[in-house]
Amino acid sequence: MHFRHIAILGPGLLGGSIALGALARGFDGSLRLWARREEAVEEIRSRMAPASVLATSDLEQALVGADLVVFCTPVEAMGSLAQRCRPFLQPHTVLTDVGSVKCPVLTEVRAGLGGTGFFVGSHPMAGSEQGGIAFASPDLFENAVCIVTPDPAADPAALAAVEQFWIWLGMEIRHQSPGEHDRTVALVSHLPHAIAAALVNLVCAGHPDRINFCGNGFLDTTRIASGLPGLWAGIFHANKEEVIASLDGLEGEVRRLRHWIESGACDQVAQYLSEAKQRRDTLKASRTHGSN
Amino acid sequence: MHFRHIAILGPGLLGGSIALGALARGFDGSLRLWARREEAVEEIRSRMAPASVLATSDLEQALVGADLVVFCTPVEAMGSLAQRCRPFLQPHTVLTDVGSVKCPVLTEVRAGLGGTGFFVGSHPMAGSEQGGIAFASPDLFENAVCIVTPDPAADPAALAAVEQFWIWLGMEIRHQSPGEHDRTVALVSHLPHAIAAALVNLVCAGHPDRINFCGNGFLDTTRIASGLPGLWAGIFHANKEEVIASLDGLEGEVRRLRHWIESGACDQVAQYLSEAKQRRDTLKASRTHGSN
Repeated sequence: MHFRHIAILGPGLLGGSIALGALARGFDGSLRLWARREEAVEEIRSRMAPASVLATSDLEQALVGADLVVFCTPVEAMGSLAQRCRPFLQPHTVLTDVGSVKCPVLTEVRAGLGGTGFFVGSHPMAGSEQGGIAFASPDLFENAVCIVTPDPAADPAALAAVEQFWIWLGMEIRHQSPGEHDRTVALVSHLPHAIAAALVNLVCAGHPDRINFCGNGFLDTTRIASGLPGLWAGIFHANKEEVIASLDGLEGEVRRLRHWIESGACDQVAQYLSEAKQRRDTLKASRTHGSN
Repeated sequence: MHFRHIAILGPGLLGGSIALGALARGFDGSLRLWARREEAVEEIRSRMAPASVLATSDLEQALVGADLVVFCTPVEAMGSLAQRCRPFLQPHTVLTDVGSVKCPVLTEVRAGLGGTGFFVGSHPMAGSEQGGIAFASPDLFENAVCIVTPDPAADPAALAAVEQFWIWLGMEIRHQSPGEHDRTVALVSHLPHAIAAALVNLVCAGHPDRINFCGNGFLDTTRIASGLPGLWAGIFHANKEEVIASLDGLEGEVRRLRHWIESGACDQVAQYLSEAKQRRDTLKASRTHGSN
């Protein structure tokens, strides 16, 4: 890992874990964490030794001399933040992000940078429903998947350097184009989140007593409904088209199943559930490690 | 616990766990496990010491002298099994079941019994996506919830005895009428199962590569899709009306959320997710123990 001066902008769970992970790996370059609010800066200071990390709300102070900048803010804030960063970047600074959506981030961040530096889109698929730097951990990224999204505008050397950075933090790299990425995460991440929230609201709204009847099945299926509401509303908005296509796709599946249940086609219901079981059992066998 | 001669009919995960739980609690009465197929009888013999448990495919042998009979077969088989049991029951035998649906079971089992014995509906909410007696455990019921469904036809003494039996096995009792029960479990158990299967099929059908991008969020949300297909098809069929009402209820929730996402109403999306988070956080705080 050849970066010597890393700036992490808007550190929460992911940005905080990058800092802790770098320190745990003996990083002895300069590590600067920028937060917009002074209270957030204070929280960073309370969690990380000032000798190893500089926490600041001054963007210039965070960025001057940086050879790697990691955007960790909510996705909708990244474009305007890139614009504010631009005056303080070197021409060859490498930039990446941890956003859950890639097409709008790539468009907006590159527009904000206006040709300064080399931006590469990343999506480290690690996290939990517990957000915030308070839950940051040096091994959050261990064995988790990081999707890197090369596109025609990505600089090959910057791409390689960003990948090395994530590998150094313990991640496994996968490649997808930004469009493929956004479709995939709409299905495997954004859709389950929306459905978990809908399930909880359907079951519990006006019926707090139903808590008494919820077992592990319901708890597991709805765990991610405890995620940060503002963060996820921003993700749904940024990936609107793919999220809506996924919701419609699920509605189609559910209607098919509903039709068979209604018409008493037990064999077809069993066949449908059997295909789901086979696919889910394959997932279980092939993945045992963390990501969100 | 005053029963001295317990017959468990169709033991899988739940029936096997009842037997193991009883033995672990020092039960020294007679414990008889009946299975329809000779291979299932052999499997019981291979897992439980013949000195403590009689395994048989002869219904009369299992039932003669029984003071408690527990139906553990799939729900759709309980009515006809009750009819076959009838000649071998004593007038005062207490009977219960472990079925996930109560209205059809109560109707069909009582019709099959034709007035012999006292049947009480039970739903021990314990289990896992791994079915079969191979996964039975003496502590499966520890701290889990058992819903008992008193109705006008239930004998009060039989009801009290059945409740004592589940409490003795470690469970917490809750009461619901059979109709309330079927509505509640459609929402908290059957609906999540249907949705988990639909999610897996939507995401993975024709796209086995997507396995590489599924994180813990997706894995948790879809865990129950690994349940036994035939068992769940039977449950959906037996609880058809409530399952369909639940699917329609969820469709209504999802359409509301979809509308806000499509129209860019981020505040309403965030509000919706925030309500779900509060409700889910309450669930987490109030329940920490096992059930399905």
